[in-house]
Amino acid sequence: MKSIYFDNNATTPVDPLVCDAMLPYLKERFGNPSSPHRFGQSAKEGITMARDNVSALIGCHPERLVFTSSGTESNNTAIWCAVLANPDKKHIISSQVEHHSVIRLLEFLQKHGYDIQLLSVDQQGELDLEELGRSIGERTALVSLMGANNETGVIWPIKEIGEIVKSKGVLFQSDAVQMPGKVPLDMKEIPVDYLSISSHKIHGPKGAGAIYVRRGVPFSPLIFGGRQEKDRRAGTENVPAIVGFGKAAELALSHLQRGVDARLKTMRDYLENQIKTKIPEVKINGAGQPRLPNTLNAGFRYASSEAMVQEFDEKCIAISAHAACETGTVEPSHVLRAMGIEEDYIYGTLRISLSRFNTIEEVEVFLNILPLIVQKSRQLFPM
Amino acid sequence: MKSIYFDNNATTPVDPLVCDAMLPYLKERFGNPSSPHRFGQSAKEGITMARDNVSALIGCHPERLVFTSSGTESNNTAIWCAVLANPDKKHIISSQVEHHSVIRLLEFLQKHGYDIQLLSVDQQGELDLEELGRSIGERTALVSLMGANNETGVIWPIKEIGEIVKSKGVLFQSDAVQMPGKVPLDMKEIPVDYLSISSHKIHGPKGAGAIYVRRGVPFSPLIFGGRQEKDRRAGTENVPAIVGFGKAAELALSHLQRGVDARLKTMRDYLENQIKTKIPEVKINGAGQPRLPNTLNAGFRYASSEAMVQEFDEKCIAISAHAACETGTVEPSHVLRAMGIEEDYIYGTLRISLSRFNTIEEVEVFLNILPLIVQKSRQLFPM
Repeated sequence: MKSIYFDNNATTPVDPLVCDAMLPYLKERFGNPSSPHRFGQSAKEGITMARDNVSALIGCHPERLVFTSSGTESNNTAIWCAVLANPDKKHIISSQVEHHSVIRLLEFLQKHGYDIQLLSVDQQGELDLEELGRSIGERTALVSLMGANNETGVIWPIKEIGEIVKSKGVLFQSDAVQMPGKVPLDMKEIPVDYLSISSHKIHGPKGAGAIYVRRGVPFSPLIFGGRQEKDRRAGTENVPAIVGFGKAAELALSHLQRGVDARLKTMRDYLENQIKTKIPEVKINGAGQPRLPNTLNAGFRYASSEAMVQEFDEKCIAISAHAACETGTVEPSHVLRAMGIEEDYIYGTLRISLSRFNTIEEVEVFLNILPLIVQKSRQLFPM
Repeated sequence: MKSIYFDNNATTPVDPLVCDAMLPYLKERFGNPSSPHRFGQSAKEGITMARDNVSALIGCHPERLVFTSSGTESNNTAIWCAVLANPDKKHIISSQVEHHSVIRLLEFLQKHGYDIQLLSVDQQGELDLEELGRSIGERTALVSLMGANNETGVIWPIKEIGEIVKSKGVLFQSDAVQMPGKVPLDMKEIPVDYLSISSHKIHGPKGAGAIYVRRGVPFSPLIFGGRQEKDRRAGTENVPAIVGFGKAAELALSHLQRGVDARLKTMRDYLENQIKTKIPEVKINGAGQPRLPNTLNAGFRYASSEAMVQEFDEKCIAISAHAACETGTVEPSHVLRAMGIEEDYIYGTLRISLSRFNTIEEVEVFLNILPLIVQKSRQLFPM
């Protein structure tokens, strides 16, 4: 049975061209980029090229980019920057639907005396921008709001959010890990101070992320040591992964310019419409909002996410119930909880996230199997 | 001209077997290890196998190992663990010859009210253990002392150090990044609470490190987010690098069991003796102490490290003046400064660090070129 991978918001398959670009850096170009000799310098060239490609993807100067090990590390670093820059300001605004790499660090800060305000969202995952504006005060050190939600795909107006936050003179950080390659991103247009992105969400390898840091904005490293990344992130650079990230960024930009977003949206919308036609009592979460073109979050009344994910896995189809990094918990996602999704639906949620490697034929295979799996799962609902 | 790589303390070539082990995880096994479906689980299997192999290399239970992105991150994490566990204790003891991933974080803590005591060493790089014992007090949160120095190869008695520190009930952290595969390491024998190791120093890929954390010792993550590494290090695991680390550890242990350390020592001692025979006015730094079998740190009176490194590079031979992560600074290494190496010698230091991929023929090539390069460099000495 040919397998189908519909879990691209968890991680993406590495593009074979990315793997090819990485290989020399796992072989002859193995040097330490800080070494002055040719082994070091040929490794350093790979990082320079990658920095150019990744910065082009988000429309920033290469110097404004700091490579990290992951989107999670990027989010953590940015939040620490704001905290250390404003030791007297103890108020941080974020939202209830952020990724855990933001929420769990904020919970840690809360235990250490911070006033953490997590903005709520409505049932469509929309943020109340007036509430945001009212919440920012003299004591606010940082506003951390994501660009697009990893579970529902709901996109927030980060340009508008940035304008509100910056008009109050407060630092603005955004987790944009799910955005590059799916929607255009241009740092010249968006007034954000720190923006997090990740390689393995754009068909690059795991082990590389980056933070965009606006010029003149305070910066403190999260990891101290050698002088890598111009003193902004210590530790020998993960050269092969950074090179892979660069190649993935180059490809992502090229596919975006050739309309991959429209192709993904067509495929997703077809999937969505067919699901609504074929299955009774289904709700599409976030459908009333702008969404990432690849993401579909559907709640099937009285069904069980876990049972359905397992049934699909037995048919070699990979989908998910919620964010991968929370697997193992039996609780429904905090994102859907925050949206106030009804109990009848929340336990029966599936996230289907497509990529440029998916085909309409795969969507058809999925759609052929779905009704039986939903029906089977509904019979098991623990009333 | 065939190139020769003698800079293995900066980074090591990836063993081709390691690269082969990684490739499936850059291709079909690309899943997110937290995903419950087969893509995720096959990635997770790689991590489990790697954890077994890395823990075997240092003689600990696999559960005691936390994977990180680098030795630097491992050192930073361990120090934060001790700081957060003892908020009222503001004294940290370390040494003047530690890696910058320890020293720079301690400098940061000093700015935030910590009393940082960096123990001095003698001209051979030896630590005064009585001074260490006297220095530990009620206010001491942590003792951080490395296992083996990256520049001189000097090995410290971490078992004895650990016994002194633990007898006072204080946490003991050790940077052992340069040790695995070169000397036996057994966590059952060494009373250390946190021990840092790194993949790219043992012919594994960059992008993976680990901390050994003794059972029952306080732990706080440096990076918050998803539940990876049993809540000890968030962020999607760098699966290919971790798998490569595991393979590298398996190979390192196997080569060590087959006597690679003796072979390295024979090669290094031959090199050292020949240098002393062929070149006048040379001092071997740390020669009076137990040393890593692969490392040679030689000071050539009136010579220039930078000029010699460059000359060797033009002959396709990679050696270094000091730690790679400090390249770009014109100052001599802080390690040699702390040892009190004389001005006439300190600017003419070379670090030659061998690996199992080096041969005695390569050593001969190096020895044939060395006298002319030293002589040429000495003529340039800026008196």
